Amino acid sequence: MSDSSETVSAKDTEEVIMEATFRALSKHGYTDLRMRDIGEEMDLTRQVIHYHFDGKYDLMSSFLEYVIEQYEGSVQVDEETDPRSELDARIDQCLFGPEFEEFTHWDRMKVYHELYTYAQNDGEHREIFDDHYERIRGSIVEVVEDGIEQGQFRSVDAERMGQLITDVIHAARGRRISLGHEDAPEETRRAIDEFILDSLHS
Amino acid sequence: MSDSSETVSAKDTEEVIMEATFRALSKHGYTDLRMRDIGEEMDLTRQVIHYHFDGKYDLMSSFLEYVIEQYEGSVQVDEETDPRSELDARIDQCLFGPEFEEFTHWDRMKVYHELYTYAQNDGEHREIFDDHYERIRGSIVEVVEDGIEQGQFRSVDAERMGQLITDVIHAARGRRISLGHEDAPEETRRAIDEFILDSLHS
Repeated sequence: MSDSSETVSAKDTEEVIMEATFRALSKHGYTDLRMRDIGEEMDLTRQVIHYHFDGKYDLMSSFLEYVIEQYEGSVQVDEETDPRSELDARIDQCLFGPEFEEFTHWDRMKVYHELYTYAQNDGEHREIFDDHYERIRGSIVEVVEDGIEQGQFRSVDAERMGQLITDVIHAARGRRISLGHEDAPEETRRAIDEFILDSLHS
Repeated sequence: MSDSSETVSAKDTEEVIMEATFRALSKHGYTDLRMRDIGEEMDLTRQVIHYHFDGKYDLMSSFLEYVIEQYEGSVQVDEETDPRSELDARIDQCLFGPEFEEFTHWDRMKVYHELYTYAQNDGEHREIFDDHYERIRGSIVEVVEDGIEQGQFRSVDAERMGQLITDVIHAARGRRISLGHEDAPEETRRAIDEFILDSLHS
């Protein structure tokens, strides 16, 4: 077996474990989750999990990175897209998510938001979330800055606006998940337009 | 013993239990919390807890209402306060909190946000949060409507703006707690002014 096929195989195995973790989490929730619950959701033997991960905590850190990774790079914009359209696309992606084969955007976000709350007591997870938050915020800040440079937007504190939009998106998703407000993402999308983005054009 | 002194005594006992719950929660967290941990934080016997509450779940519901109640009515505005000043006071109260003798605003909000995340699987807690969210949102909507009526604000969808501000506040608190962004409330306060409230005056 060549090195390259070994790498592919390890990658496939990790993906099988990650998808099994998803299924186990949706049944048992995070706090009650045991390694054996994950083992029961896959065809491989449970020993494979212990070979790849050093306990539940290590596995959950990798799982969190796996979930986040599926969102990265899923917004495709070409060079000719104007800043406002790019902003719209990025905000839609965070609020409504891309299409997935198994487990919807909301299944994924449910896990994301649950682990986010636990991150207060957890240095490693906190760092993963912090990096992800920073990347989302950064991508919005960049488009706002482009728009100002190109004269499409009035001059604003782009950092502050990027943070505000990122916070609003996060809260709307959390409200849909925790309080069951199904219309939170759509309503929030309108509020962002009406009260935040439209002011960029004045 | 008269009825009235009995009522006062039951109320005192519940407050002792609630404060003991606070101390136990800050030590053990919500998922690991056992009734006996609460018992160890108070001078009364543990049986008192079982007399007043039907298990951990019932106690946590009462505790959540207790935490929320301490925030209600703590914003005092007189009739002459103009809408913008009242809005500012209400937003500051949600972001920075009133002063407490024991356990700071952030100790309280940490518990609030943790239980908020759990509310997705919990009908009774969800209802308590939903009511509270609605009261905060409603109080902001009311001031915005007053401001429009008095000609201080331009005409906007007050419901949508109230929701947006409530969401932003929630996200900023959550970010300070989960990601440790100490400056989140202050930065968010500035963003609300600059991008949301200032547009009311145009």
